[in-house]
Amino acid sequence: MALYIIGIGLSDANDITLKGLETVKKCSRIFLESYTSVMQCPVAELEKVYGKNITLANRTLVESKAEEIIIPAKDSDVAFLVMGDPLVATTHIDLFLRAKKEGVEIKIIHNASIVSAIGATGLQVYKFGKTASIPFSQGNYMPETPYNILQENQKNSAHTLLLLDLKPEENKFMTIADAISYLLKIEERSKKSVFTESTLCIGCARIGSSSQKISVGTAKELLKVDFGAPVHALIVPGKLHFLEEEALKEMAKK
Amino acid sequence: MALYIIGIGLSDANDITLKGLETVKKCSRIFLESYTSVMQCPVAELEKVYGKNITLANRTLVESKAEEIIIPAKDSDVAFLVMGDPLVATTHIDLFLRAKKEGVEIKIIHNASIVSAIGATGLQVYKFGKTASIPFSQGNYMPETPYNILQENQKNSAHTLLLLDLKPEENKFMTIADAISYLLKIEERSKKSVFTESTLCIGCARIGSSSQKISVGTAKELLKVDFGAPVHALIVPGKLHFLEEEALKEMAKK
Repeated sequence: MALYIIGIGLSDANDITLKGLETVKKCSRIFLESYTSVMQCPVAELEKVYGKNITLANRTLVESKAEEIIIPAKDSDVAFLVMGDPLVATTHIDLFLRAKKEGVEIKIIHNASIVSAIGATGLQVYKFGKTASIPFSQGNYMPETPYNILQENQKNSAHTLLLLDLKPEENKFMTIADAISYLLKIEERSKKSVFTESTLCIGCARIGSSSQKISVGTAKELLKVDFGAPVHALIVPGKLHFLEEEALKEMAKK
Repeated sequence: MALYIIGIGLSDANDITLKGLETVKKCSRIFLESYTSVMQCPVAELEKVYGKNITLANRTLVESKAEEIIIPAKDSDVAFLVMGDPLVATTHIDLFLRAKKEGVEIKIIHNASIVSAIGATGLQVYKFGKTASIPFSQGNYMPETPYNILQENQKNSAHTLLLLDLKPEENKFMTIADAISYLLKIEERSKKSVFTESTLCIGCARIGSSSQKISVGTAKELLKVDFGAPVHALIVPGKLHFLEEEALKEMAKK
């Protein structure tokens, strides 16, 4: 009897690990966290490959009614599926802590995450600084946190991964162009030359899937690129090693 | 016909993804990169689960005789297995570039990496700065790079993951105590108060495996902890959020 928090990877139903699949198969209830990310395949495809019915777990369920996930794990095996690697988002750490308080045993099954899969750009993963998130702006309210994190990383010549907001239930996904516009607006206000139209950017869409797209260019250039379906992410590289430059060129060609 | 660079995860034979396994099964040659990391299970166990013979690829083969891996991929499917996520280490980016130059098609299959699996400590993955590596010291030669990266991260209140050197072929694996001693020696020289006996540290061993061990304490305290078998990693946390403190306490209890 345990709550299994299982990463299912980045793209489709075949990205689960053997350990993950074996565990899902023995669980009596399967939840899929459905508000912090989205797979490149329909849930029905996951159900087919996993051989199990899946209950979608939205933010309300996970954050306000977590007992519906946790209590059943006291006397049966319950799976909580998370896209990517399971303990990267704070919301899942919170679920972990609540389950602990209820005396539920918890097991983690890891999987690929965007924070390592960005190696697919040719940039060195070890040279990334803090990861930033760009939220949907609400009217004039645009938090400057991502801009400030970018500035901090630049001081250390570190690369910056910017994750873009998404609301899968409303079918709302921030695009790379949205993210660039967001940062340019903050630049207009702050005038610290952290992110301008000539800043070198790497746009990444659907990393880890067969339709993955990586493009390199200035912010101004990437504003015009159509990256297609979600999920998008933006990278602002720090100082590039020549090997990174060479790899980046190759990766962006594909 | 392609060269498949496949992540096989962090711990044992069941950490491969369905996509990874399906790919391995159709390949005519299977190499396992054997010098940047080590699994928690014997290679025979991988061979059994994958249903294939595996050739160990040491540093000489990958860095000096890469054509032995690349050329066969021109007219058959070849798998190059890497522990963790495949494009995190520079050496694999280099293999990628050489294969590209030979006109070989390359496909990447992602998997869990230590850089996201450290979420298992309860620390927020997004708040990690650059990753540092501690090399075995050669006599008096001790590069200060890891110490300097730690200092840079501290300025941004970022957490620091320090990866510890290993030479699996010589059965040499740096321990957390070795890593702490290394940093303390540089502190003695540099006197910048970046890493002292009272610095809070998190020691992690065998992350992602069933025998995973996480301990929290000052550098001086962790020097005395036996973390058991490799692979070890050291984390020096930056500023902790109260949720991280709470989660860290729980994770270290397990």
